[in-house]
Amino acid sequence: MSLSRTTNSKNVDDTTLDAIARSVRALSADATRIANSGHPGLPLGLAELGALLFAEVLNYNPANPDWINRDRLVLSAGHGSMWLYSLLHLSGYALPLKELKQFRQLGSKTPGHPEYGHTKGVETTTGPLGAGFSNAVGMAIAERMLSDTFSSLIDHYTYVIAGDGCMMEGISSEASSLAGHLKLGKLIALYDSNSISIEGSTDLAFTENTAKRYESYGWHVVKADAHKYGSLRTAINSAKTETTRPSIVICKSIIGKGAPTLAGTAATHGAPLPVDEIRAMRKKLGLPLDKDFYIDPRAQKFFDSQRKVRQDKENKWNKRYNSSSSQATKLKNYLSLKSDSIKWPKYKVGESIATRKANGACLQAISDVADFFAGGSADLEPSNNTKLPKKGSFQATRPAGRMLHYGVREHAMGGIVNGMTLHGGLKAFGATFLVFADYMRPALRLASIMRIPSLFVFTHDSIFVGEDGPTHQPVEHIPSLRAIPYLRVYRPADAQESVIAWKSAYGKKKDPSALLFTRQNLTVFDKPKDWEKDATKGAYCIKKQGNDITLVATGSEVNPVLEAATMLKKDGYNIRVVSMLCKELFDEQPREFKEKIIPKASKVIVIEAASPLGWDSIRPLGHVGIDGFGACGPAKKLEEYFGLSSSAIAKRIKEILKKN
Amino acid sequence: MSLSRTTNSKNVDDTTLDAIARSVRALSADATRIANSGHPGLPLGLAELGALLFAEVLNYNPANPDWINRDRLVLSAGHGSMWLYSLLHLSGYALPLKELKQFRQLGSKTPGHPEYGHTKGVETTTGPLGAGFSNAVGMAIAERMLSDTFSSLIDHYTYVIAGDGCMMEGISSEASSLAGHLKLGKLIALYDSNSISIEGSTDLAFTENTAKRYESYGWHVVKADAHKYGSLRTAINSAKTETTRPSIVICKSIIGKGAPTLAGTAATHGAPLPVDEIRAMRKKLGLPLDKDFYIDPRAQKFFDSQRKVRQDKENKWNKRYNSSSSQATKLKNYLSLKSDSIKWPKYKVGESIATRKANGACLQAISDVADFFAGGSADLEPSNNTKLPKKGSFQATRPAGRMLHYGVREHAMGGIVNGMTLHGGLKAFGATFLVFADYMRPALRLASIMRIPSLFVFTHDSIFVGEDGPTHQPVEHIPSLRAIPYLRVYRPADAQESVIAWKSAYGKKKDPSALLFTRQNLTVFDKPKDWEKDATKGAYCIKKQGNDITLVATGSEVNPVLEAATMLKKDGYNIRVVSMLCKELFDEQPREFKEKIIPKASKVIVIEAASPLGWDSIRPLGHVGIDGFGACGPAKKLEEYFGLSSSAIAKRIKEILKKN
Repeated sequence: MSLSRTTNSKNVDDTTLDAIARSVRALSADATRIANSGHPGLPLGLAELGALLFAEVLNYNPANPDWINRDRLVLSAGHGSMWLYSLLHLSGYALPLKELKQFRQLGSKTPGHPEYGHTKGVETTTGPLGAGFSNAVGMAIAERMLSDTFSSLIDHYTYVIAGDGCMMEGISSEASSLAGHLKLGKLIALYDSNSISIEGSTDLAFTENTAKRYESYGWHVVKADAHKYGSLRTAINSAKTETTRPSIVICKSIIGKGAPTLAGTAATHGAPLPVDEIRAMRKKLGLPLDKDFYIDPRAQKFFDSQRKVRQDKENKWNKRYNSSSSQATKLKNYLSLKSDSIKWPKYKVGESIATRKANGACLQAISDVADFFAGGSADLEPSNNTKLPKKGSFQATRPAGRMLHYGVREHAMGGIVNGMTLHGGLKAFGATFLVFADYMRPALRLASIMRIPSLFVFTHDSIFVGEDGPTHQPVEHIPSLRAIPYLRVYRPADAQESVIAWKSAYGKKKDPSALLFTRQNLTVFDKPKDWEKDATKGAYCIKKQGNDITLVATGSEVNPVLEAATMLKKDGYNIRVVSMLCKELFDEQPREFKEKIIPKASKVIVIEAASPLGWDSIRPLGHVGIDGFGACGPAKKLEEYFGLSSSAIAKRIKEILKKN
Repeated sequence: MSLSRTTNSKNVDDTTLDAIARSVRALSADATRIANSGHPGLPLGLAELGALLFAEVLNYNPANPDWINRDRLVLSAGHGSMWLYSLLHLSGYALPLKELKQFRQLGSKTPGHPEYGHTKGVETTTGPLGAGFSNAVGMAIAERMLSDTFSSLIDHYTYVIAGDGCMMEGISSEASSLAGHLKLGKLIALYDSNSISIEGSTDLAFTENTAKRYESYGWHVVKADAHKYGSLRTAINSAKTETTRPSIVICKSIIGKGAPTLAGTAATHGAPLPVDEIRAMRKKLGLPLDKDFYIDPRAQKFFDSQRKVRQDKENKWNKRYNSSSSQATKLKNYLSLKSDSIKWPKYKVGESIATRKANGACLQAISDVADFFAGGSADLEPSNNTKLPKKGSFQATRPAGRMLHYGVREHAMGGIVNGMTLHGGLKAFGATFLVFADYMRPALRLASIMRIPSLFVFTHDSIFVGEDGPTHQPVEHIPSLRAIPYLRVYRPADAQESVIAWKSAYGKKKDPSALLFTRQNLTVFDKPKDWEKDATKGAYCIKKQGNDITLVATGSEVNPVLEAATMLKKDGYNIRVVSMLCKELFDEQPREFKEKIIPKASKVIVIEAASPLGWDSIRPLGHVGIDGFGACGPAKKLEEYFGLSSSAIAKRIKEILKKN
């Protein structure tokens, strides 16, 4: 069944479109001028495109920005935020004019770059270039999966506005190559090709043939004049009609178009237009000379008339959604992420198993009951243990699959996971080696800023990677991930803790999680009764030989630290051993809980196979960790070399205690 | 003047080449088998290419791996390290067979991935995919600059071996696009197109038309059969002849070629061949069945005969280099990075100036006297203040320029700076906003692993970026950079400190530096006599009102902390104020110095507009910092909102002291 996709079956007249475009220019020029900060170049340059999209192309209901079957529009060139704010305001989203007048002010709904969750109608937080492009690919993947499962309910396009900067960033290349491979026919990129970057003409650094590049990815490439409605309309219609390949419309535009003397120059990119220039622009465009934030009444009238049409459209869809059809019932489960209860794997004390394998078992347990669970690895599936055998690969010819092959494209993977998560109806994850978390760090940051529950699996979490050597051995990554606000970092100490980590991360509706697993086998150790309850709060005490000294360990260091504590007891030390499964969860707990785990007077030493820093909140006396980078060699040799055997740890602890 | 570029004017016979290829296969299969770890797939698949390169194509002298005019060969697909080790050994580099027998063992010269500085003949540390590709682009840029200045002395090619994984990574796309723009005609990429990735066939995720993609970047594209010398020779010769564009030779290869049953499968990629398979391979290739680490005597004989030829070649070059020609004299200065003395800018107490502007003045001061100083920004030159006006832009048509326009390609920029630094003869830098350090983090890590003195400028270093909002406001970046071993992170507190930071960073011959500068103006404050001496060691005490409490601040927080200390004095607190210009330098100092700056009994509080962590080594009682992410608004409003005014800081300090 094919759903109708546009609100307007006939074209909107040029006079109306011009009225909208003119209003976008007026609002954007004034808002940046009054803020004395911001980017008028894109909003002015894409005013015609914006008018066409919101009047004619996009399927949306401004009264319900969360409607699951809306077309998605991502402004990857996020600095052009006033373009989006102007259009959200004009088209009737809950973004009053007074917010536009507060552009870039503290607490306003119109921050410098669009922020998801802060402003209704903003699909994702953008600004770091290229990120939005990868989010859009994720949204288009989500649409492809869901429209296959819910043919009567899901059928929308995903549009992304990308600038020259987005095109230069590697993340867009990665995401575009994958989108072409997956033949995401309902993804449409609108490339604002204005040939201007901050340093001047793109001729300074960017002279590739972008059309040819996208053809090489398997995309459908169309060109358009960004200032002619007919040209844009023809190109976009051609893109919509071509559903076997993603499309890119190369919109040749003039940056700052409408500004009489500055249009076409880098001067319009990132600074407000001078007052005189705005005045001259008003004259040129036939706007009232002395009225700020002018909205052409024809634009207002048009969008007012559209509200009911758009609401009716959603109502029609709601009828199907509120029916008792099997698709409608199932979609509700998808949207609320409800499944049969998960049969989590169980492990026995004494078993020796790599936590990455426990990770694999958890992923399969979730996948077995949750059809909305989707993800995969950046070409490390056999190592990351991310196979979803019952669901199989997601491919162009197999949209029912849920296992993604991201290819060796970590950064795009991060953005895609975020895009799928933002889309709704899916729970998404991505996986790679922990050391390559660096490749996707901007995406981890954006998930955290947006506070969305993206899931990231990072295996091979320490120097115990062994023979692959320092380039593949994470050292600074654990503290560096912990430094990202709102990102939960789990580092389970054995297979049982791995299950708790997955339960916890999977259950969170807010904020992303990074789950860290070992390459090497770890022995499942004996735990006190009720450990799970405390572990779910981030940390629990495994061994209580006394309160004087608390050894805080994570992951693979817990086992040797338990042994070291036994050794140290013989030397008369009264030691507690704490496994810190997730420091962020622990830090959030009330004081009583924290002091139950780490008594106030206790001397704290942290043991972790990582750079010895980032533990300020528990003020350790010292660390047993890794100074410098790793080294190449078998894991067992490295344990000795880096002093991470139980006896070496015991020795170091004594030294630290003596010094302090 | 054109220098002759190959050692052998005539082709090496197939029998000899076969002997080399056979030896590469034997050595690589055995080394991985004995290590029980490693990647035989690439070494076997590229054995013919390796033979041709080392016998016929490359200009090198194994007796002097540091010869500045050698051809550069970068193995971007670093997991294929045994390919490189085999060939370095065979061709006579100082890598004895016993090292190959110690492949991937602790302390050997043959670690899992090639490590620069550890093994002679390894041009750069590779393994993280795509990184080597960007290094090679940096080397080719260096060659272009130097061969223009030193036409009688510098004239070499840069070769890079890239796999399917390298091709998928965004960093290669960025670097390739820029290389095409710059028309780096002596850069030759050899793409090992074996259509196999770790998860299986590249058909799973990578089906783009790579040839077309490289054409779109403006490259010269040639195809070759990786297992036929004639085909490879013709392609490489065509690549060498074409000097107006970079070339890529798409070498269609069979992964693990030579392994009788496993060739062409993912099984050969990352695991040793089974013993039976090796035995069958020996049989197939006509190798002695029971001899490990077999080297065909013809291969040995050939390379032995080459040593003198290659030494003679360098000797001939040395004659020119040791002449008193002006080029020779100047090149010596370039190689030792010697220049007239730099006229560092001076600033007066009370001046109000953004440290990014002081950065600009320092860069110009260096550039004015140092022709070997080269760098630029990832399209943020006007914001980063990285203009080198006296030297001008480096472009294809202007190789004498020293100011690079990297485009919006931070990751490639990082790799290119590393490549230029590795090349020698140039001092290179790259610049962007601090928040985008995340985009290039893998390159920062590799510079640190290699301990090379790459220079990175990061401006807009805190929430005081203001209206661009949280996506553009670094928060976790300062501690995250400090977590990278060996990377020095400077955060100067005013223009005078900025000069000291640049002096220090510029003078270091080892380890990379990250220099952090403000967007906003900072007042130059009064300093004690001799402050520079201590500042050069990382920290100095500005105000000594007593020893009880030490306030440690960095960058823009020093000024308000000085005011806060004055306020607190009125309340009876005895306070010292320390500016921590570079924590890494401070941490390296002897205990006495550290206790001179921060007295042992002193209570420490850290004030920094960043995530409050990473200060473990000085055990602060508490932090005044940023919890969570930034916010959009004018900087002055944010100061209030985040409690970073002098009075808010004073209040927070009192609270922290009361709690503890």
